[in-house]
Parts: sequence; C-alpha cells; structure tokens
Amino acid sequence: MESAAVMPARIVQLGLAFRGAKTLLSAAELGVFTALAEGPLDRDTLAKQIGIDRRGARDFFDALVALGMLERDDQGRYGNTPETALYLDRHKPTYIGGELEHFNAYVYPHWNLLTQALRTGKPQSGARASGHYSALYADPATLESLAKGMTGGSLLVAKALAVRFPWQDYKTFIDVGCAQGCLPVLIAQAYSDIAGGGFDLPPMKPLFEDYVREHGLSQRLQFFAGDFLQDPLPTADVLVLGRVLHNWDLATKKMLLKKAHEALPAGGALIVYERLIDDDRRVNAPALLASLNMLIMTAGGFDFTGADCIGWLREAGFRDVRMEPLTSEVSMLIGIK
Amino acid sequence: MESAAVMPARIVQLGLAFRGAKTLLSAAELGVFTALAEGPLDRDTLAKQIGIDRRGARDFFDALVALGMLERDDQGRYGNTPETALYLDRHKPTYIGGELEHFNAYVYPHWNLLTQALRTGKPQSGARASGHYSALYADPATLESLAKGMTGGSLLVAKALAVRFPWQDYKTFIDVGCAQGCLPVLIAQAYSDIAGGGFDLPPMKPLFEDYVREHGLSQRLQFFAGDFLQDPLPTADVLVLGRVLHNWDLATKKMLLKKAHEALPAGGALIVYERLIDDDRRVNAPALLASLNMLIMTAGGFDFTGADCIGWLREAGFRDVRMEPLTSEVSMLIGIK
Repeated sequence: MESAAVMPARIVQLGLAFRGAKTLLSAAELGVFTALAEGPLDRDTLAKQIGIDRRGARDFFDALVALGMLERDDQGRYGNTPETALYLDRHKPTYIGGELEHFNAYVYPHWNLLTQALRTGKPQSGARASGHYSALYADPATLESLAKGMTGGSLLVAKALAVRFPWQDYKTFIDVGCAQGCLPVLIAQAYSDIAGGGFDLPPMKPLFEDYVREHGLSQRLQFFAGDFLQDPLPTADVLVLGRVLHNWDLATKKMLLKKAHEALPAGGALIVYERLIDDDRRVNAPALLASLNMLIMTAGGFDFTGADCIGWLREAGFRDVRMEPLTSEVSMLIGIK
Repeated sequence: MESAAVMPARIVQLGLAFRGAKTLLSAAELGVFTALAEGPLDRDTLAKQIGIDRRGARDFFDALVALGMLERDDQGRYGNTPETALYLDRHKPTYIGGELEHFNAYVYPHWNLLTQALRTGKPQSGARASGHYSALYADPATLESLAKGMTGGSLLVAKALAVRFPWQDYKTFIDVGCAQGCLPVLIAQAYSDIAGGGFDLPPMKPLFEDYVREHGLSQRLQFFAGDFLQDPLPTADVLVLGRVLHNWDLATKKMLLKKAHEALPAGGALIVYERLIDDDRRVNAPALLASLNMLIMTAGGFDFTGADCIGWLREAGFRDVRMEPLTSEVSMLIGIK
C-alpha cells in the first residue's frame, strides 16, 4: 500500500497543533501554574482554585500532563514541572507567561484571519493595522496586555543581552521601543556604573516608571517620551532596537536605522535584536511565522534575515557590523558609528 | 544562571504552535497543494493561481518549506513533498485535506472559546451543542463541510480496518454514523462478496448515495436513514461505531452499545474505533485534546481509554472483547454477541 511508505502523520500532527497550543494558553490565562506554586493539588481543589467546572477539569489537567506542562503524582495530584514552576508562576521574576496571555487574548484569534490577510495583503488587526502604536496604546487594557506581553517575550533575550555585550565600555544607553523597561532594568542591575533608560510613546510612561521603581532603579533609568516616526531619537552611547524593525515596512526600517546613526556619538553602538530568518529562508519556521504575524497585525511589517539587516546597517553608515546569537531563537546585530 | 539549566524553549514552542498549524490549514483552504499537483511553480505563478496577494506570498510559501510541507528547488520554485502530493491534492482519492478544511473553518475558531468551555462546562458551538446532529445537519454548507471532514479524517483508519478485520467471515455490515460512506466503500472495494451500507440521519442520504455511486458500488451499499437516539439500529452481521461514542455522555454511550447488541445476530460482531486515551491518561496528548474538543463542541461528549470501553462493552453483553491498533493514533475494540 502506498500509505505504508508515505505517511500523513506529520500533516495531521501539524494541522492539529493549535489544540495543544491553545490548551497551554488557556492554562496561562486561568493561572494553573501560579495556583500550583505552593505545591501539588488534587483535581477538585485545583479546579476550584482556578475557577473551572468539573466537566472538563480532568481532561484539561491530564492533557497538560501529556503535553509535558504538568506532572501528576501517584496520589493523582497535579504539580508544576521544573520549567512551568520557574517560568509560568506569575509571582516569580522569571515569569514569561505575559507573552502567552497576550497570544491567548490577541494573537490566537487574529490568526483565524490568516487566509484573509494572505488574500488581501492587508492587516486584520484594527488599531494596530494603522501602523501607529499610538492608536493601539489608546486603550489602557490593550496597552497593559501588550506591555506585559513584551516583558514576557523579552526577559530571556534581555538576560542574554545583559551578559553578551561589553556594557563596561559604555556610560549610557537607551532602549528604543522599551515598553515596561524589561531590558533597561536587567542591564542596570548587571552594571552599576551605567545609566540610561527607555524611549517609547507617552502612554507607556507610567508603566515604565512603575516597573523601574519596583526594581529600585529610578535614580539611573529615565523615560524618554516620543514618536520615532516623527521625532529624532534621543542620544546615548548605545541604542537598542529590539523587535522593533520587524513591525515596519522597508522604508521605515531604513529611516529608523538612519535616525539611530544620527543620534549616536562617534564610536557609539547600535544593537538590533530580532528573531532572524535563516539566510536561505528554509529552516527557521518560527521566524517565518513571526513574519506572517506581521502580515496579519501591521500595514507593512515583515521579518528578515541577518544578511538583509547587515546590508541595511551598512547602508545607514554603520561599520564593524557583526552578528551574534542571544538565545536559541533570537540574534543581535551590532554596528558602530 | 537558573535559566541555563531549566529552559523555556518547550513552553514557547508549544504556546506558539497555533501559528504553524493555522498556516497549514490556510494552505489547505487555499488549495496550495492541489495547485502544485502538475509540478513545481515559481512564487508569482503559485500566488496568482491560489489567489493571494504578493505581500505575504514569499513568507507563506517559505514557512511551508520550513514546516516540511513544501519543497523549494534551486530555481526558487515550490513543489509538493511526497506526503503533501499524496494526501493534500484534492483530486487524488487519498486526499485527507477535507479534515484540515473542516479544522480551518470550524474547529480552530471554536477553540478560541476553550477557556469559556472550561469555566462553564458548557459547549460553545451553537447548533452542535444541542447534542442533536439534526440541528447541525440542517445547514447544507455545514453538513457538506462536516461530511467531507469526516471522510478526510476516516480514510486512513478505514483503509486499516478494511485490512485488519476478518471480513471474509461475514456477509453483511453497516457503518453506524457513516457520513459520506468512506468506510463502507473501502470495505466493499476490498471484499467483493460482502454487502451492507451506512446508517445516518436522513439529510446525509444524498451525500452518501452520490459518494457510493461515484465509486460504482450502488448495487451493494445502501443508506439506512434513522436517528440512533430514537430508533433501533438496523441489523447486520457486523456493526461499526467509529468516532461516534466520543460525541455523547456516558448514558448515551451505554445506550448505543446496548442498541448495537440488540441489533446484532448471535455471533455478530461490533467494532468500535476511536482515538483512545492511554489507560494511565498521561501519554496520548492528541486523544486528551480530542476530548477537550468534545467539551467545546458537545453537551456531554468525552473521549475515553481502552479499559473504559472494554468495561462498557462487557456490561452491554459482548464477549471475547479485544483491542487492536489501526493507525498510530486510532485503535479498534471488537466484541462478539
């Protein structure tokens, strides 16, 4: 039989993968992993604590066990795995679930419109589709969900960046598109001699200042309010553009790199980090899917390869351009003025 | 650093897995694999043929390459893989994409309501939630999508079942909940001495009869119209209940097994096939997620383990109950009256 040699298992597994994903996203939304922070709970106690009905509880928890996101002991009690205990407990500073909560509330439903986005080439995301974050930031709930999502999504990259760049050689830095300030906080924690802050649209100011204050860094980290589509960028020895360029069309990408070059002093450094597509565009599925996310969410955004970005950096006037991995999925490009 | 030992990669990959899934589902909807049936096409030709805009085309096709669903040659032309050529070309009898099209149109959006289903214990699916397929079948478009989805989802199981059951020992069979008749057609093709047909609600009749006629089997395969919630089951030497029991609550499951026992002659066989949960409920994620699908879609349905079903079959009066795998994901249980 033909099907003995060529099996459809991969097709079916891939086509159904949204179910396991959504199960984890709902678990993050419902606070399953936070509820288990103190230790394992039996089924009824856990169900009650997160506010779900008895009917689906057993299948939901056992599915999370089978997906490797929970453990179940011999008494039938559910507990966190080492990973979910560390990364999905809302009360730990290592929490990355803000990103999952954002996927759950905002990204999963928008991906239902992928076919329409492909047919039209137009974004399907309301406010964000205008290409102006100011419209998106106008709704406080969306602003907060987005800011926390960006913190969750930046935490590991920011930790790696704090370690892998020679910050000791510089006095000041500004993270452009800083959201809550996850990256500035981690750098300031790692290097007591550096000062700087974050640049973002004005509505982000209170969220940034609260976050920085919670970390006791208000003396060294400052919020710079502005709109990088209209205004020049503030100056510092190091500027960071992390997960910013992919939101914009090619002309805006190049304009932002040019503004960064103008704002830096001679010898200053620009760091760009993104989930880069492999240069041959045939291996890194998460980066290519991130680019389809930009199709759905933005008017002209797209992700790109390291080679693409090295070309744009050189065109903007940067020298000594180099690329280094930060995490398994995200790399940075560094250019010197 | 703690994160060096315990990494969140599996969490992030699982949480984002809906994007790869939806990309494949949109590709099935747009007919990407059917467009490539005659051979590879360049980007612009393929985009034009499936009716998508230039903006997202390259990322969409390259993402499908990275996901292993397309190949790209040295001239940049896209072609099917051996798997997608065989299983996702609408014009081949091996097409299983009807199931993906159904996931795309119906299942993916309903899973956005998983949290609500968990909180309430109530289905989120409109017509189907009533527990009566007659309401669902009333809309011709939904009926056809569902019927083709069931054919796509049954094809491989039905092929395995045609081979792995001793059909030569029996004269007649009826598939209960037959949809278009995928299983009856495959069994009748494999065994020229057997006759029978399918039992389903009256609106399915024309779809069944068209499908059977297309396969030249109208002489041996007949449609039995009825509602198994109200009516007795028709009689035959072998009755099949495939992916039926999981739609219903425990009382209805047991009632259907009892009706099957009543309808069979002494020595007759009942075959139940399902995506069974492993008895310890900690390994088979797809089956546990299928059960959450029942939570979202039906008033009382749930999936179950082999041990659960063996117990219900014995309780209904079946003897010599045995279980055998059919595909990597689906198993059958056989009971003799």
